[in-house]
Amino acid sequence: MTPTVPLAEVERAAERIRSLVVRTPLLESERLGAELGVRVLVKAENLQHTGSFKLRGALNTLLGWQEDGELPTGVATFSAGNHGAAVAHAARLAGIPAVVCMPPAAVASKVEAVRGRGAEVVFTDDLLGTCRALCEERGHRLLHPFDDPAVIAGQGTVGLEVLQDCPDVDLLVVPVGGGGLISGTAVVARAVKPGVRVAGVEPLTANGVSHGLRVGRPEPLPVRPVSLADGLAAPFAGEHTLAHVRELVDRVVEIDEQSIRDAWWPLVDATKLLVEPSAAVGLAALRSGALPLGDARVVVLVLSGGNTAATLG
Amino acid sequence: MTPTVPLAEVERAAERIRSLVVRTPLLESERLGAELGVRVLVKAENLQHTGSFKLRGALNTLLGWQEDGELPTGVATFSAGNHGAAVAHAARLAGIPAVVCMPPAAVASKVEAVRGRGAEVVFTDDLLGTCRALCEERGHRLLHPFDDPAVIAGQGTVGLEVLQDCPDVDLLVVPVGGGGLISGTAVVARAVKPGVRVAGVEPLTANGVSHGLRVGRPEPLPVRPVSLADGLAAPFAGEHTLAHVRELVDRVVEIDEQSIRDAWWPLVDATKLLVEPSAAVGLAALRSGALPLGDARVVVLVLSGGNTAATLG
Repeated sequence: MTPTVPLAEVERAAERIRSLVVRTPLLESERLGAELGVRVLVKAENLQHTGSFKLRGALNTLLGWQEDGELPTGVATFSAGNHGAAVAHAARLAGIPAVVCMPPAAVASKVEAVRGRGAEVVFTDDLLGTCRALCEERGHRLLHPFDDPAVIAGQGTVGLEVLQDCPDVDLLVVPVGGGGLISGTAVVARAVKPGVRVAGVEPLTANGVSHGLRVGRPEPLPVRPVSLADGLAAPFAGEHTLAHVRELVDRVVEIDEQSIRDAWWPLVDATKLLVEPSAAVGLAALRSGALPLGDARVVVLVLSGGNTAATLG
Repeated sequence: MTPTVPLAEVERAAERIRSLVVRTPLLESERLGAELGVRVLVKAENLQHTGSFKLRGALNTLLGWQEDGELPTGVATFSAGNHGAAVAHAARLAGIPAVVCMPPAAVASKVEAVRGRGAEVVFTDDLLGTCRALCEERGHRLLHPFDDPAVIAGQGTVGLEVLQDCPDVDLLVVPVGGGGLISGTAVVARAVKPGVRVAGVEPLTANGVSHGLRVGRPEPLPVRPVSLADGLAAPFAGEHTLAHVRELVDRVVEIDEQSIRDAWWPLVDATKLLVEPSAAVGLAALRSGALPLGDARVVVLVLSGGNTAATLG
């Protein structure tokens, strides 16, 4: 059985990345609270450097390699955008080149965010395959977007901060793509406050984790994932993330596109935070009833990122 | 000569309102910093309750009256929206009715924000006159949107927090409507760090403070102020605010509508904060050169509010 990451690894990650990440604020939204009839707080990872939580996992992995004297001469990854920008940023800090495999349909501003940080972009439909071939060819090391204990530990620092800032939380709602964020968050929640519920939300049209749970292993989705929540469109879950979700997460729910669309602007307007649609899946699931509140009184929504192609009009 | 508010009054205001306001984060924007060639931090008052800094002054005034045993049976004010919502919120906390005079052209969502907090709205072109008549009629007390030492002291708590969080600031850029925010902020800046430059920015088409400085007294603008930055469209400056600006502020610059429009989305996208156009005047002035950076190295932009009628599209 694939082991879960111990809390101590998340705490070590927090130490490691502390000076290089924003300790993002946890903000209460009275408006969302009034709507849902509970206290609602949001963890504003849209305010993180590179505009998403992804920097935490990327930095923890690279800095861990560096500590172990194993920093490669280059790093390769695959990403719809946010992880790519995070790896580009982290690699630049570490002083090594980065190459990011992206789907041809990636949002243009996300491609720019990767290139703007000095990384090379390779467009491909076979994200993992191309990435592995590039590693082989160039002697680069793969920095996986989610299925790696070091990445999971890094993302878990989000959960650490949430529980420090709001020990009263009893329902933690986390957007799910490949499952790295929810895996790390659940590690912390289970260890620090066993009674807290941890729920994941993924788009119905990009449900790699739910699919993996159903078939019992990470398996590419039969149909290419496409969602307004482009940041969550991972083509498959991972061994590590599925193990974490199975063992530590209360439930993962799937949410339709219209509900995501309907929740997005109200979330931005209520919180005054520019977030990307991926960050709205939690509110969408609570509003639509897909994720019941149960007896929760203090709900934290993790707002995963703020990189959106939309503009104000 | 109209005296300026002493620092101690701002410190007292901070104590008074502490439990009822958000201590909003001061966030660094690497993207804006790279663009302007200095460190840039933003004070996110869009995250304040009611969506703007206005709550600070309204609460300080009402709580001050309460402390002095002078809480009226009702309160009246005039506002383009944000101060109205703040007074409505504060009056509800104090348990007294509020009536808000608004211009007929007020943004619909700002009218709703006032009514939604239980206050009565009266539309009028003669904001101050109607407000005074209502006070007379109903025995209400006027809570001025800017020209009152208690309001200025309350808004000054923004400056207090900025200087606590970033003692290195050497240029503080503040949006100017009637001048309450910049007056209070300048009180703190001058007292705590005399070397810091405090600059105000107001729309060219809603330049009540610049006009007042030119003619030497608060005087209604010859043309009704209209600006994309609707929150700054005060019809005149005040005795108190003009005195503060004259004595404590380095300069107030005027900025054209197109520059405000051009700065707005880049500010939202760079900071990942939903702000209203009024909050963008500072960046607009720096980008256009209307406000030179001089030898500044650490710039703080006060983002005054987040209540906008625009949506993401």
